[in-house]
Formats: sequence, C-alpha cells, structure tokens
Amino acid sequence: MKLAERLSRLGTETAFAVSAQAAAWAAQGHKVYPFHLGDINLPTPENIIAAAEKAIRDGHTGYCPGIGITPLREILAEDTGKRRGVRYGAENVAIQPGGKPVIGKFISSVMNPGDEVLYPNPGYPIYESQIEFQGGVAVPYDYDETEDGFAINLERLEASITDKTRVLIYNNYQNPISAESSAAEMAALAQLAVQHDLWVLSDEAYYEIRYGGKSRSIVALPGMQERTVILYTFSKKFAMTGWRLGAAIGPEEIIQVISKLNTNIESCSNHFIQWAMVEGLTGDPSGPENILAELKRRRDAAVNGLNAIEGINVALPNSTFYLFPNVTKIMRRKGLTDVDRLKDLALEHTGVSFCTRNHFGRALPGETEAFIRLAYSGISVSDIEEGLSKLKAYFDSDEQ
Amino acid sequence: MKLAERLSRLGTETAFAVSAQAAAWAAQGHKVYPFHLGDINLPTPENIIAAAEKAIRDGHTGYCPGIGITPLREILAEDTGKRRGVRYGAENVAIQPGGKPVIGKFISSVMNPGDEVLYPNPGYPIYESQIEFQGGVAVPYDYDETEDGFAINLERLEASITDKTRVLIYNNYQNPISAESSAAEMAALAQLAVQHDLWVLSDEAYYEIRYGGKSRSIVALPGMQERTVILYTFSKKFAMTGWRLGAAIGPEEIIQVISKLNTNIESCSNHFIQWAMVEGLTGDPSGPENILAELKRRRDAAVNGLNAIEGINVALPNSTFYLFPNVTKIMRRKGLTDVDRLKDLALEHTGVSFCTRNHFGRALPGETEAFIRLAYSGISVSDIEEGLSKLKAYFDSDEQ
Repeated sequence: MKLAERLSRLGTETAFAVSAQAAAWAAQGHKVYPFHLGDINLPTPENIIAAAEKAIRDGHTGYCPGIGITPLREILAEDTGKRRGVRYGAENVAIQPGGKPVIGKFISSVMNPGDEVLYPNPGYPIYESQIEFQGGVAVPYDYDETEDGFAINLERLEASITDKTRVLIYNNYQNPISAESSAAEMAALAQLAVQHDLWVLSDEAYYEIRYGGKSRSIVALPGMQERTVILYTFSKKFAMTGWRLGAAIGPEEIIQVISKLNTNIESCSNHFIQWAMVEGLTGDPSGPENILAELKRRRDAAVNGLNAIEGINVALPNSTFYLFPNVTKIMRRKGLTDVDRLKDLALEHTGVSFCTRNHFGRALPGETEAFIRLAYSGISVSDIEEGLSKLKAYFDSDEQ
Repeated sequence: MKLAERLSRLGTETAFAVSAQAAAWAAQGHKVYPFHLGDINLPTPENIIAAAEKAIRDGHTGYCPGIGITPLREILAEDTGKRRGVRYGAENVAIQPGGKPVIGKFISSVMNPGDEVLYPNPGYPIYESQIEFQGGVAVPYDYDETEDGFAINLERLEASITDKTRVLIYNNYQNPISAESSAAEMAALAQLAVQHDLWVLSDEAYYEIRYGGKSRSIVALPGMQERTVILYTFSKKFAMTGWRLGAAIGPEEIIQVISKLNTNIESCSNHFIQWAMVEGLTGDPSGPENILAELKRRRDAAVNGLNAIEGINVALPNSTFYLFPNVTKIMRRKGLTDVDRLKDLALEHTGVSFCTRNHFGRALPGETEAFIRLAYSGISVSDIEEGLSKLKAYFDSDEQ
C-alpha cells in the first residue's frame, strides 16, 4: 500500500533518538546523566493539581468550545498582554493542546505552497519540518557567537529575503542556543517584518523562564501586534509538559482561523485542565517561583561545570534551560570531525547524554565550528556537578 | 495581511452554531431540550478519575513518547483485537489526543492532492473538510432508508469509483444516521476496497455503544487488516469526551507515520490520562456498563417519543446515540421547504434543539426527503419525554 508523497518532506525531532540511546545505555546498568531532553523533572505545583481534580469532580469532563473556555482565554489574554506591554482580549486567544500545535496551525493559516519562510537554524526542528511538509520553502537564518551568547546574523537574514518571503519564525529565548535578542536586534527584525509585510510567529515558550533582566516581546514594537502570533505554553513555567496545554495568541482574524483548525483537528483541548490553568494564572505564584529558582541553581551549576572544561567557554544565559557550548577545541583535541561521534563517545565514557547541533536543523553551508546542546531542566544540581566533572575528565584528555 | 489560500477549502462542524443558537435561546429564559450535540452529560467512571489523580501524584506529568505509553498501547491492542476477532500488538497503536485527530493524520498519510476519497454523506462533516483542505477530491456515497434503518447505496458507490480513487472512509455505527451495515453490505465494501486497492479509515467511535446484537469490524474480513486504520476513541464508552484521548490502530507502517505526525503536531497526548485509561480498560467495568444502560433507556424514550409524532417512523438502532428521522411529511404539513427553518421554528415553539441533514455534509443532487438529527446522549429520560411531547404537539399541527 502506497503512502502519501508529502511524507517525504516530513521531518521529526531526532532528539528522541538520543533519549532512546540514553535509555538503552542505562538499561545496561550504566548511570546516565540526562542532559538531552528539554523536559522538567519537577512536580507540577500543588494548587494546579488540586484545581484539576476539582474541575473533574465538578463535571468539566465533556466537550468545551474548540477555541477554549472563556475564563481562561480572558485571564491568559490579560496576563500575556501585561507581561508584554500590549492589550489582548479573549478574542485574541485560541487554546491548544500544547504550545507545539501552534507551529503547524500558524503555517497552515498563512503560508501558501512555494512561499518562503525564514526560520532559525540551529533551531527547534519542527519549524523546518512543518514548513516543508506543508509545501513551503524553509529559508534558514543563523547566529554568530558573541561575548555574551549568540546574535542573529541580520545581514545574511536580510539578504535571504525575496519577493516570495511571507513569514518570519522568531524564537527569542531560543531553543537550543539560548540566544536572546538585544533591543537593536529585535527592532531590526520588526523593521524587516513591517517593510516586507511578513507574518511573524513569535515562539515565546521560554518567555517566563527568566533568571535575570526582563523578557521583551516583539509584539510590543510598532506595527507588530497585527502581524504576529505568539506561541504560548503552560509547559515550562508550571512544569507540566505532559499535561499538554498552550495557546495561540494574536490578531482576531487569524485566531478565528486557528480555532476552525482546532475544530477540524482535535475538537478542543482537555476541558478540566483549562479550568486548572485559571487557578495556575490567578492563584498562589509560589509554585512557578520555586520551579524557576531550582532551574536557576541548575543553570549556575551547568555553566560552571562546562566552563571548567578546557576549551569550553559558554556565556551565562538569562533565559531558557539550554546551553550550547562550542566544542570545536575538544573535537580537535580528540581528532574527531563528527560531533555526533563525540556525543556517542561521551555517553560511553561518562554516561553524560546530550544532543548536538545536528538535532536542530540541517547544517548550513560553511559551518566549521562544532556545538553540543545540554538541557539542565531534567537533572538535579548534584547530578549536573557529578556528570560534568566526569565530562571534564574525558573532554580534557586526548583519549577518543 | 493575507491568509493562506487553502483556508478556502476548510470546512467545519456547523453543529456548534446550533449549540450557540440553543444557548442564546436558553439565555432568554426559555427551557431548552438539547438534542443537538453528541456530548454525554454523565460523569466519567470513578475508577478512571481516581487513576488519573494517582497518575498525577505519581509524577506522570512530563512528556511521554509521541506514540503513547507502551502499557496502554499493549492493552488497547489486545482489547481492540479481541473485540474484532483479529490480532493487534502495541506496534499497531498510536495514541491520539482524541479520536478526531486520526481523520486528518490518516488523510495526510495516504492521500495525495487530486486523489479521490469516498466518504459517507450524510456523515461526520470533518471527513469532507479534511479531504478538501488537504487537496483531495471528496466523493460522497449515500444511504437509502430501509425498514430497519439505512443501507449504503452500493451501486452508486461502486459507480463513483475511478482510477483516482485511493481511500474509503467507512463509519459503521454511523454518526449522524445510526446506520449499521448488514454482513452482506460490509463484505461488499471490503471486496471493493481489495479490488481497487483502497486504504480504509474505519471510524469505529461507536463500536462499543451497543444496545443489542454484536458489533463487527471490517478489519476482520479477508485482506482488510493490512489496509485499514481504525479510529478508536475513549470518549463515548467512558463518558469522557472532554478528556481528549483516542488512538489510531492499524498496520505498523502507517502507525509509524502517524506517530511521526504526532511528534510534528502535538509532541504527545496527555501523559497521566494514558495511565488512567490502563485502569479504564482493565479495571472495574461497571462504569461503562452503567453509562450504556442509561443511554439505552434514553434511546428507548427518544424512539418512542419520535414515533408518537404523526408522519415520523424511525427504526430502533442498536448502536450510536443518534436518531435521524425523516421529517418530509412534517415539512409538507407545515408548508416548509427548508429543513433548517423547521429547526428554528421547533426551537422557538418547543425549546427542542436539534441538527438537520445540512449539518452533515453538503446536500447531494436529487435529494428530496428532509431529515433531522437528534442526539440523546446529553439529555435525561424525563427531559426527552417532556421535550418530544412538546415537539409532537408542534409537529402534529399545521402551524408554522
């Protein structure tokens, strides 16, 4: 039986293969330090669990509107607007079964086959996959390493804009590289979007995973709110990745379209969890505060552990829970050319499991530096310290 | 800002507009008898609620595999196979956030743009919408009214098959018309599928909503299991429409593809609800038994209430929770030509809210009879009796 041709254009998240590799290694009796997956091994706050249980007992177990329940849409609109310095109402919010569904639905809503879409690379691999699966042309933009992290190469980005460019995908507080735009970089992107009349997907999954400074959204810049859909997720702030709830937040016209897609794709998101998140957004804030404090301790331990390795010099990011160290010197020391080989060797020698640049989009022409990605959201401070000290011993040696 | 051209091909479930109309009427202080929506106003069984709460407390709140947790996939494979007389393993099951997502993902997996897809009309409107949205040609097949319900017009179905026909969508235990295939009808469909090498989506959402006799699946017929994907849902049997959990069950090759689509679309389905459904499938069966017993009482009340109306003669279906009475004589009595006008008048005169044939696919050329659809899953026996006696008074009169 023949399958559809479009499947040849469907990508995936190859990071899951790293999970499988780590699990197989652990099953052989080895201790594994899981830096590979952006999941959170902390409990969901108690008040959210209690509110979910109450909502079930209150009978919120039948269908709800495809666009989501009004109380959650109202509160999320207000909360999102306030944190970004703009105004949103319930009409700007379509609840989703996670943040990820926003990517495919947004692309379905604004991109025609053959349209070009600018997307970050390295970046979340589902952008590239969904653009191509739906018949678009995925046009990567990339980053330069700087003193304090990474900066978008705006010159190359601008040069890649053509008369077929319709969409910009922007992931400030970036997975996997933890990049954060300067005010000037964000302003330049907004200017390009307005100038070329682009739709913008602003993936703000990590907007509230913030250890210092203040998050800013491109929606607050002139001309942007009317062309931007925010990908919002409850997953990270509330340590509830497996509950699956998020939202698309944007202009009413496109929110209506996304809501119609909801009706076509999944009817509605889980009903009682929506009631639980009314509590999440309005109730006791100590749960997410404690999650953030623990993630900050892990960030500090991970940055310190990596920077103790000879040849690694990673900046201290103020957001996300990812680190993206340049390991070119380690590769050279060990005589390796394939960073995925370094990943395999590190797992075998130390039990430290991580992803590489290759899990976050196709490598671009002319790339010469090698990068790995470590997530510190699913591993305790003591295991971060133990694992990275083993990694240091192995990386510092010239043993393969 | 321009939206994507494909949106012009996107349909929806217009039944939700009937809900809004009913809610607006109720808000004006009128009593409404909600026969319009296939939701269930009964609580989810207690053992499932308790299992969900335990799974949350046990920390099943992070990501799980996109294809679903293995214990649920194993148990669902065994349960589904046993009830259909075939063998399935975990490799044949991809968990979904509801039954509905199977429709779009199946079509993405097997249909190329321009391919023709046979689908039931009247039928669940998302088939037509997803086929056309994804660039296929939706080719309707229809039903003839019989003594004991409805039968597919196999002659017309066969005549509509061309060399571009790739897929058959089959919804035995049918929404909205509650049709059930005879053994001969199912065998004829299977033969056509094998002969023309068609993929088959067997939407079995109501397979276990069964008041008498025994459900049979087309997968059990020769040559069918390898070309058929079952749409499975937990929503109906366990009165948990708002929890959003279902599955695609079929050949391993396509289940792998659907799992890759899961990774691209929503990462995974809710993690702790999957653990709850391990309990649902293996624990105390009295919850679903009680739900079914109550639905049977409602069916009997609804059939009796409708058949008391002069000019209505509806058969007693053994499955689903829908009735699809022919109201042509009522229309004639009242001098009406538009069945949607009858719906509006019935709501205003009696508070009885229902859908019509027009909510279930575009009317076909040559249709002369008028039908309405009543769902009895969301309304008590006493309200069924009260509402339908008001409807009788109104339908029996020649008042508009």
